[in-house]
Amino acid sequence: MNKGLLIVLSGPSGVGKGTVCTELRQRHKDLVYSVSATTRVPRAGEVDGVNYFFKSKDQFLDMIARDALLEHAEYVGNYYGTPRDFVERTLASGKDIILEIEVQGALKVKEKFPQGVFIFLVPPSLDELKDRITGRGTENSDVIDHRMSVAVEEMNLIRYYDYAVVNDQIDSACYRIQSIITAEHCRKDRFIADLETMKEATEKA
Amino acid sequence: MNKGLLIVLSGPSGVGKGTVCTELRQRHKDLVYSVSATTRVPRAGEVDGVNYFFKSKDQFLDMIARDALLEHAEYVGNYYGTPRDFVERTLASGKDIILEIEVQGALKVKEKFPQGVFIFLVPPSLDELKDRITGRGTENSDVIDHRMSVAVEEMNLIRYYDYAVVNDQIDSACYRIQSIITAEHCRKDRFIADLETMKEATEKA
Repeated sequence: MNKGLLIVLSGPSGVGKGTVCTELRQRHKDLVYSVSATTRVPRAGEVDGVNYFFKSKDQFLDMIARDALLEHAEYVGNYYGTPRDFVERTLASGKDIILEIEVQGALKVKEKFPQGVFIFLVPPSLDELKDRITGRGTENSDVIDHRMSVAVEEMNLIRYYDYAVVNDQIDSACYRIQSIITAEHCRKDRFIADLETMKEATEKA
Repeated sequence: MNKGLLIVLSGPSGVGKGTVCTELRQRHKDLVYSVSATTRVPRAGEVDGVNYFFKSKDQFLDMIARDALLEHAEYVGNYYGTPRDFVERTLASGKDIILEIEVQGALKVKEKFPQGVFIFLVPPSLDELKDRITGRGTENSDVIDHRMSVAVEEMNLIRYYDYAVVNDQIDSACYRIQSIITAEHCRKDRFIADLETMKEATEKA
């Protein structure tokens, strides 16, 4: 009856998108994970169509040319992108699909798929984000300062999103995201088509 | 920090607004119930400021003149209305407030308070609504037909609302409404003001 929702989960580097997304999928078994296409060589144990859709560079460039990707980017010499077809087939089957992606990629998806639900994960405070960025490795303070200024720039992109979810505790962040998904399914626009069907059924009866 | 939300729960006659509202307040102890003003005489046990704000007709007309009501209506010779002040003081204190109201009243509230969250409770089917309307008493079929046509008219007002919640089971209806409240608290517009505060705090530190 109703189509599924595309949930786009983004936020600044270091905010914990991956952890939250993994936990959400654990709790919400019918939430489909958007599988990226890549030209990267598969690592041991990675399965085509599960971890990634593995493509040759020519295949990938052809996907770009056919507008078959909702977004794509090059990273360390490899291409990564979000296949439109996989997203659309999942939605048509009535299932929700979640795409975990960095902030710039999310905005590209929004251009092609404005009907998605765009969720921005935010740190409890900028100090907390700095702690998380610092805690990642042994980078010197210039690197950390640069990452922080990038993260603050990324935070400003929140205005293009629909929702802001504070990642203070994974449990409450997941609860809020699940609430957003439930609420979005209740939007009246989604219901109005159903109402017409309901009236027709009553008139026939 | 953030203001509370005005949640307006409405829907056609017979859909079960009162039952859902009572259950929600049971589950959600910090959800304040919007107390109406009325010129009706208090019944035994009714407490001023809890069940209603009891007003003389002059006091009520004065409230209308001062634009102190978000909506009002006359019913069987008595006035009923929603005091704006009670709603605004509750929201300013950071608490959410729920207003259970029939569909026309809700639209008047929307004119004066468009930032409210407008939820339309819908029956699982129009047949189900007919059963509920029929089940209320021993009215003849003309009365029932009239009520049904009113209910169908009321259903069409759903387009002015934000959300449609199917009242198939009280448990799932309450779950959906609680999700909507949680999601609305995550709207990015509510967060952006907090972000400015967050940046200032970091700059000072």
